Amino acid sequence: MAAAAPVRVYGPPFSSAVSRVLACLLEKDVPFQLQPVNMAKGEHKKPDYLKIQPFGQVPAFQDESITLFESRAISRYVCEKYSTKGNKGLYGTNPLEKASIDQWLEGEGQNFNPPSSVLVFQLAFAPRMKIKQDESLIKQNKAKLAKVLDVYEKRLGESRYLAGEEFTLADLSHIPNTHYLVNVCERDELFASRENVERWWGEISSRESWRKVVDMQKSPPRG
Amino acid sequence: MAAAAPVRVYGPPFSSAVSRVLACLLEKDVPFQLQPVNMAKGEHKKPDYLKIQPFGQVPAFQDESITLFESRAISRYVCEKYSTKGNKGLYGTNPLEKASIDQWLEGEGQNFNPPSSVLVFQLAFAPRMKIKQDESLIKQNKAKLAKVLDVYEKRLGESRYLAGEEFTLADLSHIPNTHYLVNVCERDELFASRENVERWWGEISSRESWRKVVDMQKSPPRG
Ligand SMILES: N[C@@H](CCC(=O)N[C@@H](CS)C(=O)NCC(=O)O)C(=O)O
Ligand SMILES: N[C@@H](CCC(=O)N[C@@H](CS)C(=O)NCC(=O)O)C(=O)O
Repeated sequence: MAAAAPVRVYGPPFSSAVSRVLACLLEKDVPFQLQPVNMAKGEHKKPDYLKIQPFGQVPAFQDESITLFESRAISRYVCEKYSTKGNKGLYGTNPLEKASIDQWLEGEGQNFNPPSSVLVFQLAFAPRMKIKQDESLIKQNKAKLAKVLDVYEKRLGESRYLAGEEFTLADLSHIPNTHYLVNVCERDELFASRENVERWWGEISSRESWRKVVDMQKSPPRG
Repeated sequence: MAAAAPVRVYGPPFSSAVSRVLACLLEKDVPFQLQPVNMAKGEHKKPDYLKIQPFGQVPAFQDESITLFESRAISRYVCEKYSTKGNKGLYGTNPLEKASIDQWLEGEGQNFNPPSSVLVFQLAFAPRMKIKQDESLIKQNKAKLAKVLDVYEKRLGESRYLAGEEFTLADLSHIPNTHYLVNVCERDELFASRENVERWWGEISSRESWRKVVDMQKSPPRG
């Protein structure tokens, strides 16, 4: 393969969905270029941007002739297209591994993400945006998340990572929201009170790929 | 491949997530056996069942030595494992097609499913279960769904199906909830008021695979 142009990721690294894709690209050692999208100015709702992300959200993604949206679909694509680069087991190396990764990745998108995104928004972003917090929503979603973490606690007592003995896309996909919950929202007791979840979080959050994303989140926003 | 034992699907066909998997198996011409799970008796929360579906939901799935949960992960697995059977393009025939299908399939799981499941529960199941309907939840989710359908209306003006010119898993995944919304919940105006969405719904709902699932939903529940 000739040295191709780097892939492009549209959106700011502080967004959980954007940082999911960045962590995946760093694991896979795929060079990328960040394309700023100024959300404060509503650039994600402008016609030009809606052409590549019709729901008006970040991230969007471009690689050669293809543009894609949805962070988990982009991550799957990156793993398939660049299967020989970087972390080769990130999306499994055979159909059974892949099926298990897909199962826990879907579980993240369907079960973990809904309550954790509400909590991240309510606890981390609402105060900064001077939006009033909704206490009953917080309580309700904390209870939902606790139930999901109970399932993880059991699972992570049986295997080192969610889909088996290796770190995969299924684990990676949990990092962005958990990072906010543990480090910004003061909801670390949800994780620290569960022994296996705590061990798992220690392992997945200290990966070099994620440390780099955290550094990118700290740099001043551009654009 | 020797004639293998049929795959097993755990759960009742009236469940949207179960019927998503059934429609996929019928498209792929993969023989299956339905394993009853009596939800009224809470069988989906019993320890034996939680071993294969730790979140206590239907469906669960078994094929030879593998058990899986999450309807969309099961569907992807079925398409990969039985790539040479039935509808061979259901999950695409090359990486670019697959990426586009994944994008719209994720979009269904993330954007279409949340409001449409709330509406199906509130409008179709709550009355039967003598649960009081929550009018503000209905209103809020109808508005969310309308926005998603506006995106689809535009997209389906550009291509016959969501991921391109062929019917794929991305379209199929929308059928179960839409079936309830159009036929049971009297929310067909959400779909009929959008010309391209209406054409698309006509095409996807008349597939033989789905007609068979509807027949299964009508048979008296067992177990
Ligand atoms: N399911 C989408 C979710 C993307 C998403 O929620 N993005 C947020 C930022 S983390 C966003 O763009 N919010 C602005 C909006 O919805 O208007 C994905 O995984 O890519
Ligand atoms: N994300 C899951 C959702 C499954 C789901 O919501 N199942 C419902 C029936 S359609 C269920 O089991 N509800 C009972 C419960 O949650 O206790 C999937 O796609 O398989």
